[in-house]
Amino acid sequence: MDRPPKQMSAAREIGVGLLGLGNVGSGVIKLLEDNAAAIVSRLGARLVVRAVAVRDAQKPRQVDLDPALITTDVNAVIERDDVDIVCELMGGTGLARDAMLHAIERKKHVVTANKAALAVCGEEIFSAAERCGVDLYYEAAVCGGVPIIRALREGLASDRIDVVYGIVNGTSNFILSTMDADRRPFDDILREAQSAGLAEADPSLDVGGIDAAHKLAILISLCFGATVSVGDIFVEGITGVAPVDFDLAERFGYVVKPLCIARDRGSAIEARVHPALIPRSWLLASVSDSKNALYVKSRALGSSLYYGAGAGMMPTAVAVLSDLIEIARNVQSGSTGALATRSYRKLVPRPVVPAADLSSGFYLRFGVVDRPGVLGTLTTILGRRKISIAQVIQEGPRDPERPVQLVVLTHEAREGDMRGALADIKAGDLILEPPVVIRVAR
Amino acid sequence: MDRPPKQMSAAREIGVGLLGLGNVGSGVIKLLEDNAAAIVSRLGARLVVRAVAVRDAQKPRQVDLDPALITTDVNAVIERDDVDIVCELMGGTGLARDAMLHAIERKKHVVTANKAALAVCGEEIFSAAERCGVDLYYEAAVCGGVPIIRALREGLASDRIDVVYGIVNGTSNFILSTMDADRRPFDDILREAQSAGLAEADPSLDVGGIDAAHKLAILISLCFGATVSVGDIFVEGITGVAPVDFDLAERFGYVVKPLCIARDRGSAIEARVHPALIPRSWLLASVSDSKNALYVKSRALGSSLYYGAGAGMMPTAVAVLSDLIEIARNVQSGSTGALATRSYRKLVPRPVVPAADLSSGFYLRFGVVDRPGVLGTLTTILGRRKISIAQVIQEGPRDPERPVQLVVLTHEAREGDMRGALADIKAGDLILEPPVVIRVAR
Repeated sequence: MDRPPKQMSAAREIGVGLLGLGNVGSGVIKLLEDNAAAIVSRLGARLVVRAVAVRDAQKPRQVDLDPALITTDVNAVIERDDVDIVCELMGGTGLARDAMLHAIERKKHVVTANKAALAVCGEEIFSAAERCGVDLYYEAAVCGGVPIIRALREGLASDRIDVVYGIVNGTSNFILSTMDADRRPFDDILREAQSAGLAEADPSLDVGGIDAAHKLAILISLCFGATVSVGDIFVEGITGVAPVDFDLAERFGYVVKPLCIARDRGSAIEARVHPALIPRSWLLASVSDSKNALYVKSRALGSSLYYGAGAGMMPTAVAVLSDLIEIARNVQSGSTGALATRSYRKLVPRPVVPAADLSSGFYLRFGVVDRPGVLGTLTTILGRRKISIAQVIQEGPRDPERPVQLVVLTHEAREGDMRGALADIKAGDLILEPPVVIRVAR
Repeated sequence: MDRPPKQMSAAREIGVGLLGLGNVGSGVIKLLEDNAAAIVSRLGARLVVRAVAVRDAQKPRQVDLDPALITTDVNAVIERDDVDIVCELMGGTGLARDAMLHAIERKKHVVTANKAALAVCGEEIFSAAERCGVDLYYEAAVCGGVPIIRALREGLASDRIDVVYGIVNGTSNFILSTMDADRRPFDDILREAQSAGLAEADPSLDVGGIDAAHKLAILISLCFGATVSVGDIFVEGITGVAPVDFDLAERFGYVVKPLCIARDRGSAIEARVHPALIPRSWLLASVSDSKNALYVKSRALGSSLYYGAGAGMMPTAVAVLSDLIEIARNVQSGSTGALATRSYRKLVPRPVVPAADLSSGFYLRFGVVDRPGVLGTLTTILGRRKISIAQVIQEGPRDPERPVQLVVLTHEAREGDMRGALADIKAGDLILEPPVVIRVAR
């Protein structure tokens, strides 16, 4: 502690090897170029891309890049002596995992945006990094450019987090926000999102909730120091939400958002991804388009919220660069590898609360036969399972061709009880189409 | 880089000396006790308070503390060999500045929550820290527990920030939010805030905008790498805002918030603190009570927002602890003092845009004489200064004892032109009371 400040050469170069040159990789190259001077002035060193591994060397690129930098050989990039940091932007859990482990064994620091690999084989990758004494940073893996990983790891390091509510999938939020604004059907909006580049050709990871579950597993490690099995997370996609649900939610004072929730329940972790009715007065209710946000409730700080672009070329590049800069600082000060880049030094495996034991309010939309007594029968079935009703809206039969819409908002109820009640209801002759079930967050 | 990971002793103690044991100091003691185990498990070391300097050793305290730790001798705390980090929580720019400089000369790392000292003599303190090779952290100085300093310094390190809009004074936000909710007058709400501990006995630093100006100067150093003279910042307090302004703002689709704005204008920095009408659709419009938030617009990331408790014992303690933990990590890894804790390594002094050259929309509320032609005359005067009108509301003379309220919303206009026009208007016989002028942010 009493040493004089270290001498730093302003011209020092820190070598970066990129694996992958898609959207995010191109953004990283662009941002490094556009803001080179500012980065040097902040860092006192230069981040230099030494090599870029791509699948197809002939493919046209979004950025101008010296063709000599491009190779199809991932290992060649990792093994270059002048590469200090390997930046994994390939995605997926196969080749990307192998490449990260290879880089770590070669004592390269690693930056990744790969939530799937971290959620599924994070333990293996983190253990390797710890063993080999290299840094592993992943700010881009959750909420894109919003520095949420740093906020949780460092800002709230002394606090105890009770629960986080997140909107962490930009595609799903774009679709539901557009449905809210335009009241157009899901498929319509999905096609529009696909042509605008806001949804993948195969959107199932996004709209099915798997992407959010991956991010939630990473958040759980940061917030609660726990590892959970991603497969145990309760996941429901947004495909069942229809424009009419926004009309009805609005009448109750709610909006429908693609939510993920993680809560520390002591012996187990509550972890869930599903669309949810949230009160219009919540800040999260105003998080629209493809934006992401994380709302955190902690003992000492209370409520805090972090909002911004969760995806996209440049926002994600900002997160990747923040990690590159932090590692470069560590390299300069000789402090790499000494500290866990997880907020907790040891993660403890914890079980996920079984789906049946989750509870929440429920929004239930039934298409029922138009005859007296239906509401009574439904509420009796719900009541037998100790599910009590908060509000009911019964739409008049506007369209004789369609079933009458009966909408029930329940008080807090157990998921298992609700499933039982719904099975009983389906077994009867009251409903003419599968009910729409959306959870209510309060 | 190829060194093996360092060996760390889990039992290592890092000594902390507290200067000040008011609200925040008590919160720090409490949080260190409450979450001791969690902090050790994250940090791998123990933060131990070695001594606490107070003004009055006899005063009853909010926390249980070994009386042997308490002293009235600030220097004795700083000079203890077992104190690694000095935590300055006294406030003010006199003794606090001296104590920080003394600590730095003694090669102690410093954590401070003191926005005034950083805004007014930050250069001196930072230079000393750089010269002596110690860390200086100040997360608690802006937006309390919200880790906004880290977000700007690290998360957005590669990006170029164009503008920030902040609600950074909790007292002012509490007063205006309560005025919005209850439509009660300023003095009423201030008294209530004082008895609830949300406002100081002398509230002038808060409601007068000075506290926000201090924070804005710190934000400017982080966002733009610039130092500005705090005295040059355009500052207007919230005391002129009345409940009726919320009624009228609402009719235009706005809400009144205590705003600060900093914008990079190249050769100069736009820096302003004043109440402002902001559109109800903005996320900042939903930041209520004593909460703080910062909205950041940057080139690559786009919009991002950071929200949470900006003041209070425990939230501020979370920020102080985040700094203590970061320094403790640096101490463990031997990387203290090597890196600037400002986002830019060198700050460049830049002028503030002169008040007369600022521009914004304006909300003007006039109490006028009840005779025909008043609106025409007013708009002619405004028009002569090239101020064009967006909307007008003229209230009928509900109360014959009171002047007719004429409210004008202008398009973007120069502050200097507006001042000229207002002088012309005041010089005439149209208005019966001083006009209320609130800027409009769009």
